[in-house]
Amino acid sequence: MIVLFTDFGTAGPYLGQIKNVLYQNTDQIPVVELFADAPVHNPRAGAYLLAAYSGEFPPASVFLCVVDPGVGSAQRRAVVVRAGERWFVGPDNGLFSIVSRTGSKSEWWEINWRPQKLSSTFHGRDLFAPVAAILARGEEVPGAPIEMPPLVTHDEWPDDLYEIIYIDHFGNALTGVRARSVATHARLEVKGAMLDRHRTYSDVAQGQIFWYENSNGLVEIAAAGGRAACSLGLSIGDRVKMFGGVTRCQ
Amino acid sequence: MIVLFTDFGTAGPYLGQIKNVLYQNTDQIPVVELFADAPVHNPRAGAYLLAAYSGEFPPASVFLCVVDPGVGSAQRRAVVVRAGERWFVGPDNGLFSIVSRTGSKSEWWEINWRPQKLSSTFHGRDLFAPVAAILARGEEVPGAPIEMPPLVTHDEWPDDLYEIIYIDHFGNALTGVRARSVATHARLEVKGAMLDRHRTYSDVAQGQIFWYENSNGLVEIAAAGGRAACSLGLSIGDRVKMFGGVTRCQ
Amino acid sequence: MIVLFTDFGTAGPYLGQIKNVLYQNTDQIPVVELFADAPVHNPRAGAYLLAAYSGEFPPASVFLCVVDPGVGSAQRRAVVVRAGERWFVGPDNGLFSIVSRTGSKSEWWEINWRPQKLSSTFHGRDLFAPVAAILARGEEVPGAPIEMPPLVTHDEWPDDLYEIIYIDHFGNALTGVRARSVATHARLEVKGAMLDRHRTYSDVAQGQIFWYENSNGLVEIAAAGGRAACSLGLSIGDRVKMFGGVTRCQ
Repeated sequence: MIVLFTDFGTAGPYLGQIKNVLYQNTDQIPVVELFADAPVHNPRAGAYLLAAYSGEFPPASVFLCVVDPGVGSAQRRAVVVRAGERWFVGPDNGLFSIVSRTGSKSEWWEINWRPQKLSSTFHGRDLFAPVAAILARGEEVPGAPIEMPPLVTHDEWPDDLYEIIYIDHFGNALTGVRARSVATHARLEVKGAMLDRHRTYSDVAQGQIFWYENSNGLVEIAAAGGRAACSLGLSIGDRVKMFGGVTRCQ
Repeated sequence: MIVLFTDFGTAGPYLGQIKNVLYQNTDQIPVVELFADAPVHNPRAGAYLLAAYSGEFPPASVFLCVVDPGVGSAQRRAVVVRAGERWFVGPDNGLFSIVSRTGSKSEWWEINWRPQKLSSTFHGRDLFAPVAAILARGEEVPGAPIEMPPLVTHDEWPDDLYEIIYIDHFGNALTGVRARSVATHARLEVKGAMLDRHRTYSDVAQGQIFWYENSNGLVEIAAAGGRAACSLGLSIGDRVKMFGGVTRCQ
Repeated sequence: MIVLFTDFGTAGPYLGQIKNVLYQNTDQIPVVELFADAPVHNPRAGAYLLAAYSGEFPPASVFLCVVDPGVGSAQRRAVVVRAGERWFVGPDNGLFSIVSRTGSKSEWWEINWRPQKLSSTFHGRDLFAPVAAILARGEEVPGAPIEMPPLVTHDEWPDDLYEIIYIDHFGNALTGVRARSVATHARLEVKGAMLDRHRTYSDVAQGQIFWYENSNGLVEIAAAGGRAACSLGLSIGDRVKMFGGVTRCQ
């Protein structure tokens, strides 16, 4: 399976252009869009989303990941990462830093394959998609092994990010914090509001804002029958605090 | 064929997560998104959309329907419904009440299959998608027969709903009224405006607002070359009236 | 491959309804959405997008194109066009005028096949989709040869359109001008701003607005790390000028 993780938005031609390349270079491999609206030009938020949402896809899945504001620059390298039995293809701007910490040791390659025609602004189509197809066909990684970039240290990109990293269609706000790393009855503070933990929407009164462990293990803020992000004025990057003890993470 | 009918929105991970489950549990069965933006947390509007739009899909299609504000509560049951030769999987919150009246008598089952891991907030992925896959594979319904819920009476959920139930990308406003249940030259009143019936956009002057029978048989409000819902300030739930005689519905 | 090019928007039932028809009338042919959000009711902008983005799809691809404000009128004909080894199905409102000029001479047919039931407002589902399926199956064109409509002259629809024709998810503004038809260092004027050409986002300072040749050969306006269309207040149809010499187009 090839899984798309991009900040392209759901509209426009870019996803279709990539699917065209994938269909032409693979034989009936399913292509699934995981996120088409990862936060724009924000590999940091994307890194935590990717780590939380990639684990439920089958081993050997190939994640084609394009959050790539540095496209076409000499500094930004194109890489393949193998982590937790899955493949990740995309830029080395930090997007793979969190997923690299899951499972056993990750392996990194710099892509040295080049297409006949490489545009300056759409490596998703021209470089990453053909490489994803190569991996999905079970062929050798078209690159040279490299060390995991030292740039992304644990200090700058902690295991849990106490920030809003995504706001969904329901106005729910996802954080980069894994619920299992905080105390069961921790309270969450965001924008001056202090929120209790509940299990699901129907456990609280209509309109009440609360936090819960979402179905992918992240701390998420929601309002029963309402839009928490609108009510609280939340944006991606807003900081959250958890009170009541932080559990030692595994 | 598996048909998705949800209020998840087109963006975000939820549709991709469900497709991952479907692809892993079926063998190349096509998956089509019918509505990804059914009105949020509104099974009532959804029920009329589902009834109007499901009939053109082939017999034996499986509709995976997730408009599920009550997810995780003890009151809300998970059901399978067979109506008009098609399968419907989802919550028993009324979403299937209108489609159950089409064709011959509908059959209902309460799902008693449970996955190894059931989240509190995403039964679409954890419960309904695997059950849809079971049905699409032609296996037995993983549940026990039940009566159609008496909760949803004809009074509360009439055969025709005189309300706006959806506003599309063109600013057209769909009602829950079947055009064949109103007089051919009925006039429609909404928000103080009185609208005539016409056949199609090019039959009226640019900007004129009118109603017509849409391609799925519903009374729909449109403006030629414009956005009727914006011009009239329409929202989902706004009431409409039809003047000029209501035909007895079969 | 069947490629969808529509102004339906990404949400709503219309794309799913069309895919249902395609799946029922073809055998596992991939369906790719190129544009679901072509400018609404704007075949002129659509014509330049289609010409710029269709060329990378494989020969024999069938483009199902629905930007069709005249649907249901007697004046608007339903056509099949063969241009540059690819098939195009849709209305004869100018949408195919630019793509007809690419490659060798284009061929045109008026569709005379009719479905059992033809709605007045959704020929995309009822007429164009079944015809696209017929072509994708390799069968004969279900229509009669016609001349390319004389209506669309080169004066009204020039080879390069000096207007904004699309604004993408990143706030980039695409023009209908092919970069190879302007001088390499031409400057672009739009809404009083004068923009230089650069190669890619990372070649300019954060926030700087510039133009570049996009990955499909069009002149595109962007801001590094920003949203050019918002900063400049750009809309579809806004005129652009290029200074510094226009290269003779081939």
